[in-house]
Amino acid sequence: MFSVFIIGTGKLAKNLANAFINNGIELKGVYSKTLSHAKEFSTLFNIPCVDDLAEVPSDCDVYILAVSDQAIEEVSNQIEVNGIVVHCSGMESISVLNKHKQSGVFWPIQTFSNNYYADFSNSPICIESNDSNDLRILEFLSDKIGAKTIFVSEIQRQQLHLSAVLVNNFSNHLFVLAQKFLEENDLPFEILKPLIHETVSKLEILSPSLAQTGPALRNDLGTLQKHQELLAHHPSLLSIYKLLSESILQNKS
Amino acid sequence: MFSVFIIGTGKLAKNLANAFINNGIELKGVYSKTLSHAKEFSTLFNIPCVDDLAEVPSDCDVYILAVSDQAIEEVSNQIEVNGIVVHCSGMESISVLNKHKQSGVFWPIQTFSNNYYADFSNSPICIESNDSNDLRILEFLSDKIGAKTIFVSEIQRQQLHLSAVLVNNFSNHLFVLAQKFLEENDLPFEILKPLIHETVSKLEILSPSLAQTGPALRNDLGTLQKHQELLAHHPSLLSIYKLLSESILQNKS
Repeated sequence: MFSVFIIGTGKLAKNLANAFINNGIELKGVYSKTLSHAKEFSTLFNIPCVDDLAEVPSDCDVYILAVSDQAIEEVSNQIEVNGIVVHCSGMESISVLNKHKQSGVFWPIQTFSNNYYADFSNSPICIESNDSNDLRILEFLSDKIGAKTIFVSEIQRQQLHLSAVLVNNFSNHLFVLAQKFLEENDLPFEILKPLIHETVSKLEILSPSLAQTGPALRNDLGTLQKHQELLAHHPSLLSIYKLLSESILQNKS
Repeated sequence: MFSVFIIGTGKLAKNLANAFINNGIELKGVYSKTLSHAKEFSTLFNIPCVDDLAEVPSDCDVYILAVSDQAIEEVSNQIEVNGIVVHCSGMESISVLNKHKQSGVFWPIQTFSNNYYADFSNSPICIESNDSNDLRILEFLSDKIGAKTIFVSEIQRQQLHLSAVLVNNFSNHLFVLAQKFLEENDLPFEILKPLIHETVSKLEILSPSLAQTGPALRNDLGTLQKHQELLAHHPSLLSIYKLLSESILQNKS
């Protein structure tokens, strides 16, 4: 049976572990430097755990380093294993895993939260490896959890990571700002949810350029001015409003 | 039978006409100052059309001014009708309709496109009127097309309009910018769609503040720096990247 060992117990580790277990991949165990985290993860998924990198078993097919970008190289240098060692970063080079004969990148383009498992089915996972056999194995692993495998170069992966920040982190932040602004004015954010859903549903039918609407696109100076007056006491949001409105006008197709 | 007359033939007019006809509201006709637009709309919905405001019938229950904010007052002043005259603006005051005994606001919080009908069911429509009977009639009209009626003051409507720009226009613009950036680098925007869908699906379970992720939230200076290097030749996008990243960090809860 194909076996995986996970290093790290954060949101990505939990989401991958859940997907592996639900799709017939053997999870051989988990490592965390914090024993309580390792034990909690162990109980959650009913798998062995260790808190010492020297105790990581050496005979798994794939080792997943689901740790922060800053920790990847250090952790990689401390494990002695056979099998493919992969990291899950959108930005780090595969070369930080150079200690190992077999290495790769396994980066799901997805956003993960606590207490909520993301759906990997048809969700993209970017893979990289310098060895074509290892690439096949990583593709198999991505296929097993129902993901859509994307073969990318390092620079393409970084470009995708930046773009993911634009469409996910920044969009979600606009939702945060709208929620704060509405709640200050005793209006519930709930009211905007159908509009947000429609914004995304439209993408199945129209390209985002064709779906663009609003006062900036129409160069409706009266509305732009009134909106800025509503933001008179919100200098940070006002700067964002001005910059994005200008950008919409500049990008008008 | 409850009857409505629509003034204007744009995206909003088409979407409302379609919803009215599908929900048992009689559409008495449409006006456009451009005869070809009036005729096209007339054919599309099989209703009478006029291109002279003097010919607008005076006996409809509600007159919907689905025209640009700038045109509302002028059009309102040129029609002689009984029934409630409403505009559909998120920003304009109800007072621009003062010529008429019965007036109101009927503003759907939604984004409309050509060749694609938005779903009004459970989508909010903000209504305003100075008369409680007129308010009931507008609520009835909103109910008939399955919308969720929201009773708001003028300032609340304007605050909602501004917030709608943040969550719809600005998010969609970020999708446009991501698409352009990816296509310049021979990567399809399609790859990001599952992430975009997940971003919005999460809102059903988590508040946007709890759903926030990414390098700015983690204050991951290495990734922030590398992203900015990727944008070295995109000064406008770089400014947006910096400003939104700073705002995420400032709003960290």
